[in-house]
Amino acid sequence: MVAFLDVTGMTRWVSETGLEHVLADMVARVRADFRRWTEFERAPRVASHSSIGVIELMPTSDGQSYGFKYVNGHPANPNRGLQTVTAFGVLADVATGYPVFFSEMTLLTGLRTAATSAMAAKALARRDAKVMTMIGTGSQSEFQALAFRSTLGIETLRVWDTDPAAMDKLAANLRPLGFDVTVCASAAEATEGADVITTCTADKSNATVLADAMVRPGVHINAIGGDCPGKTELDGAILDRARVFVEHEPQTRIEGEIQQRPADFPVTELWTVLTGAAAGRTSAEEITVFDSVGFAIEDFSALSLAYAATRGTRYVQDLEIVAEPADPKNLFSLLSPARVMA
Amino acid sequence: MVAFLDVTGMTRWVSETGLEHVLADMVARVRADFRRWTEFERAPRVASHSSIGVIELMPTSDGQSYGFKYVNGHPANPNRGLQTVTAFGVLADVATGYPVFFSEMTLLTGLRTAATSAMAAKALARRDAKVMTMIGTGSQSEFQALAFRSTLGIETLRVWDTDPAAMDKLAANLRPLGFDVTVCASAAEATEGADVITTCTADKSNATVLADAMVRPGVHINAIGGDCPGKTELDGAILDRARVFVEHEPQTRIEGEIQQRPADFPVTELWTVLTGAAAGRTSAEEITVFDSVGFAIEDFSALSLAYAATRGTRYVQDLEIVAEPADPKNLFSLLSPARVMA
Repeated sequence: MVAFLDVTGMTRWVSETGLEHVLADMVARVRADFRRWTEFERAPRVASHSSIGVIELMPTSDGQSYGFKYVNGHPANPNRGLQTVTAFGVLADVATGYPVFFSEMTLLTGLRTAATSAMAAKALARRDAKVMTMIGTGSQSEFQALAFRSTLGIETLRVWDTDPAAMDKLAANLRPLGFDVTVCASAAEATEGADVITTCTADKSNATVLADAMVRPGVHINAIGGDCPGKTELDGAILDRARVFVEHEPQTRIEGEIQQRPADFPVTELWTVLTGAAAGRTSAEEITVFDSVGFAIEDFSALSLAYAATRGTRYVQDLEIVAEPADPKNLFSLLSPARVMA
Repeated sequence: MVAFLDVTGMTRWVSETGLEHVLADMVARVRADFRRWTEFERAPRVASHSSIGVIELMPTSDGQSYGFKYVNGHPANPNRGLQTVTAFGVLADVATGYPVFFSEMTLLTGLRTAATSAMAAKALARRDAKVMTMIGTGSQSEFQALAFRSTLGIETLRVWDTDPAAMDKLAANLRPLGFDVTVCASAAEATEGADVITTCTADKSNATVLADAMVRPGVHINAIGGDCPGKTELDGAILDRARVFVEHEPQTRIEGEIQQRPADFPVTELWTVLTGAAAGRTSAEEITVFDSVGFAIEDFSALSLAYAATRGTRYVQDLEIVAEPADPKNLFSLLSPARVMA
């Protein structure tokens, strides 16, 4: 039997444990896995593109466990009441090849992306960062805000989205939790006084949601919406003024903001900062960019944490995914012999 | 909600519909999809190899539906009571990216592999073929035999396996269904008088389960066990005497029997035979080899058939895989606000 954490199980686990507690555990888990980066299989995800969206498979393995995530990205989905991004994932035992854990990952992706962003910002943002601008206030935004507060102590948010209702939603969700939220009239207004700028928009195009002039020295940019070929968010000139950090360079060359720059544009893989092999921020004036596209190891971390936390609890149910004939070579025995010739 | 066909649901559907009926439908479905081959995305599967096995993801899409299979191959599993191959798969809607069908595929893989083999043999074996040799009598073997009987009328089997219990199992399963089964003492004995030879062994090595001398003119070889880098079954000399047919040439170059031959060794993609663009068997003396490794389109066909047949029936259950917030941009609303700060 495979343990299944469905949407209800996931929401109960996260709500009853406390979202900020889960986010803190997630930051620690993702960081620990980034620090053992080279133990993992690392390959760009496998994407199936259509004119209106993408479906991706993101596998990796650390030699003991294998994990993969299925995730889609369909920017027009909200117009028909559907989510832009949905996901699910599986963990399996490398020794047997058997799946052991199956989980919803729409919520879990929100958590792992927020945890990864906050972990990167902890290493790259100024220690005295107080104000975060959020450009794009969709599904991911509240998770981002909570992860940044628990990791960096940021409580002041200046937000901008082309959809006013989405901004109001964020404000309604976060003000009761103690955030100081300013709903702005433009991206330029939102970026006034920013120490950290998070861009998280969904359009599958080369957009410029953040112009060069909006970025003052010392800012850390958490760029998470540019994550597909032909989908970017930043004015390319920002990249030229900044030090750029990435997850897995070969994937980010294909999918990240650095699509806008030549193949030899200098980048630093984030895991090398976390192990101390490479420098993070080197001055208070430096502009740092985490050109995040989402990598399979982050999903592996999230699945591993969720499995460890919910295994054997009432949050999960058993699914009969794997046939288990008494004689493993007698798969045929599972069929009723009398009916084979029906 | 996603429709889920678990192991019990699959066995009930197949048993109650009749295995041979399902196999006949599967042959037709796989054939129809092979005949529209160029409508599908075609890429080699994504494999994660360890010292004792492999885990693979096999995605494809026809532009309307997207499907993928998770499948492992662990030859030592039966020694610990586990199956060599287990699998599950998913169908999704390309327009929304949402998954719609989730299915066990351990049994379904047995059906789709048998259907593909029989479909290929129908195009490539001699019309008067009466005797099939089966080298390897593991989990797949009974499905192969039934598909060949329903498609080519073959009822006479000569079998060989290094595990005598596995041969006895096949005989016990198939004799009550009307097959004439001869359990042999060697591969050489099993191949005497063969018109079709099916090789389906599990060892992840370059083995020679079928020697050149065992293959007389006019034989069709259904080679399905050699399906990984470093995993082959045939004496390479057989390939030189034969015309070799493959599923997706780039994948078979990596995984198939033709690993043993140079990159320009001539092969014919099977779909071109089925559309009439290429010749199949051209004489009664020709040796034909279907160098089958298993391709994602076959799994797509199998999932599509199972989904169409079981959707809305008691064979499937609903799984809550996809979060469905009332406001698609308010994923956060699924969490209990009172608990976020716990």
